[in-house]
Amino acid sequence: MRIAILSTGDELTTGRTLDTNANYIADQLLAIGYEVTTMMTVGDYPERIIAAWRNLFSQADVIISTGGIGPTADDLTTETVAKVAGVELVHDQATAERIRAMFQSMGRTMPENNLKQALFPAGATILRNDLGTAPGFRIEIATEHGPRIGFIMPGVPREMKHIMAEEVLPWLRSKRPDTHEYRSHTFQTFGISESALDETVAGVLDPETTRLAFRAAFPQISVRVSVHGPPEVVEGQLADAAAKIRESLGEYCYGEGDTDMESEVGRRLTEAGATIAFAESCTGGLIGHRLTNVPGSSAYVLGGVVAYKNEVKHAVLNVANNTLEKHGAVSREVVEEMAQGVRTLTGATYGLATSGIAGPGGGLPDKPVGTVCIALARDGATFSHQYQLWGNREWVKVLTSQVALDWVRRATLGHDPTQSSVLRK
Amino acid sequence: MRIAILSTGDELTTGRTLDTNANYIADQLLAIGYEVTTMMTVGDYPERIIAAWRNLFSQADVIISTGGIGPTADDLTTETVAKVAGVELVHDQATAERIRAMFQSMGRTMPENNLKQALFPAGATILRNDLGTAPGFRIEIATEHGPRIGFIMPGVPREMKHIMAEEVLPWLRSKRPDTHEYRSHTFQTFGISESALDETVAGVLDPETTRLAFRAAFPQISVRVSVHGPPEVVEGQLADAAAKIRESLGEYCYGEGDTDMESEVGRRLTEAGATIAFAESCTGGLIGHRLTNVPGSSAYVLGGVVAYKNEVKHAVLNVANNTLEKHGAVSREVVEEMAQGVRTLTGATYGLATSGIAGPGGGLPDKPVGTVCIALARDGATFSHQYQLWGNREWVKVLTSQVALDWVRRATLGHDPTQSSVLRK
Repeated sequence: MRIAILSTGDELTTGRTLDTNANYIADQLLAIGYEVTTMMTVGDYPERIIAAWRNLFSQADVIISTGGIGPTADDLTTETVAKVAGVELVHDQATAERIRAMFQSMGRTMPENNLKQALFPAGATILRNDLGTAPGFRIEIATEHGPRIGFIMPGVPREMKHIMAEEVLPWLRSKRPDTHEYRSHTFQTFGISESALDETVAGVLDPETTRLAFRAAFPQISVRVSVHGPPEVVEGQLADAAAKIRESLGEYCYGEGDTDMESEVGRRLTEAGATIAFAESCTGGLIGHRLTNVPGSSAYVLGGVVAYKNEVKHAVLNVANNTLEKHGAVSREVVEEMAQGVRTLTGATYGLATSGIAGPGGGLPDKPVGTVCIALARDGATFSHQYQLWGNREWVKVLTSQVALDWVRRATLGHDPTQSSVLRK
Repeated sequence: MRIAILSTGDELTTGRTLDTNANYIADQLLAIGYEVTTMMTVGDYPERIIAAWRNLFSQADVIISTGGIGPTADDLTTETVAKVAGVELVHDQATAERIRAMFQSMGRTMPENNLKQALFPAGATILRNDLGTAPGFRIEIATEHGPRIGFIMPGVPREMKHIMAEEVLPWLRSKRPDTHEYRSHTFQTFGISESALDETVAGVLDPETTRLAFRAAFPQISVRVSVHGPPEVVEGQLADAAAKIRESLGEYCYGEGDTDMESEVGRRLTEAGATIAFAESCTGGLIGHRLTNVPGSSAYVLGGVVAYKNEVKHAVLNVANNTLEKHGAVSREVVEEMAQGVRTLTGATYGLATSGIAGPGGGLPDKPVGTVCIALARDGATFSHQYQLWGNREWVKVLTSQVALDWVRRATLGHDPTQSSVLRK
């Protein structure tokens, strides 16, 4: 079954809005074994939308469309699809009432415009949208190329994802010639390049029944294993495949499922009943920001100090002026005192510190841009290391924060924090 | 002249990589008066790429293609375009030598694979790419629909943007029937919704010669004015149009050109010879992170304290336990003491503080999620306000940081910081 994706909207063709819907849909389809043949985008012009549909009929069996089913004058998808299908528009009273009730529950009156969202091409199957006013629909269209299926969904990403999960993906899964089911499991990795990752997992799994998908979202790369098989064995297949990948990834994998480094750190700190405080120089507050992005982080984050100026390192964190003068702010000696200082100041289990040169300015012959020192202090030991990182200012800050957080994660697991995998190329 | 965009690559059709190139190109084209008719994406399959080109020949006069001109086996664009154009591939020695020299300058030997990047369809015009190994090319193709122009560029965004600026956009500008030139100017706004912004600028400019483009990139919305006219008057046209928009935007505009709130704050602090320290609770370090994202910020950022726990507010910032007990951490009284405390601690000109409930947990009947207090302390005065913000955890943090930074900006301009425009709906 060939699948095409159609995105509709002037905001897309004028470059005003980045189309993330098509990318999301393609990724979701891949997880259930489909690769998209074509993606197309047109603006809010009836003749262009009609041409796009007819075009895609010649290339795909299923067309998944987003956009153009809102209440305003430039929302043309529904009437255009009806035209292409050669059918009339029909008013669905239940939908109209649901939309009206939605507005009422927000203390508002439904604008009459929204009634057009209760019109559907005759014969269409309405797809429930619990998150918005516009229900989507599925329609079978007889074309010169044969019967075609159209899925019409809203362009609002949250609503589209909901309808994909509730209606579209289950339908597509049910149409596979086999009775196979599809399962996926994701590993989050850090510290290894995409090509080295590729080599690491190459040949580990059987390409007949499994598929690996990599997604690089700096600073992490996710590896998704997808398997398909008869319902009674597919869970076991997934567990086996996941175990093989888990073993081959080793320490490069820091978490599984939809997670990130700060969430994993939070989980580990919570399990250990430990707390953390941070002393940041070059990262400027990014570590604190990331840690506090995790809901519930107030259970283990005490706070921290952004000691951007040396005077603040001394006055607030008690870094000795002697140490600053002798070794410079970007040194293992200073960053160890910063980590110990914030730990003493707050009473945290772990004190984490960073000091470095994010660039573009500030580099020195012996300490070029990208020189970064990290320290972690706990009861009885202080660890530190000097890295030579790379990239622009934002890149250096983000990479430093990721390594630093990985240090904390490793420490909570009883590993040597300084052996964070970014040290290995 | 109708323009279509073609993006090529399996990484796009599998959803692994988000296509930002098409969006960028569409936006750049809009600024010089062109709206894209169609955007299409296909994977690395020769027959699908050929079909896409032939398809687009029927809809557009110019096809701008990205992707598929790398050195590996799945880079198929060049040979496919030659096939579609019905011409042979020709080796360009100058290009081959330039690629070889590039590798040598990095201390490496050019893999033989890369030689395929020196092959071009006979008759193509090579487009210089100073940032990568693959030069693009422009080619005229005779089709059943008439003569067509193809621009073939690398998929690497940085390289594509370079070739767009150096080669593609100038060529397209030169092909306009008039001798008009195109100029743009951008305003960054904050504190007004997109629809209210739309209403504010409606009718201010003449749609015949000017165009307005809005781009929402939370928490800011940019407004770009584009004008076109004969070369001798176009600069004056731009200045006039910009003046009208500037006036209608009023205080909602906080900066002009490619800027952001933290850069504007940095500029104002530098001009005033002032320094800043921050005391963050709910924002967790985000304000420090944003301020230090600006190169050169060490000139005016002293540092700050992330006082996530009340004990840290008291121990490090000297917030009185009495105040914490009486009013609670999320109160104007506490946030004023935080701002004064960090100012005293560091000696900064401005002390900025935030305390609030980002959610999803932590809400109280009288202080629901989204309740946020901001304070700004300077010599002789301390300002504070309690807001009812909205959205999820990330949204509340980002919006709070934006309002807080806007407070600083307003203060450096001598305005009342508490009148930041987000107060008005």
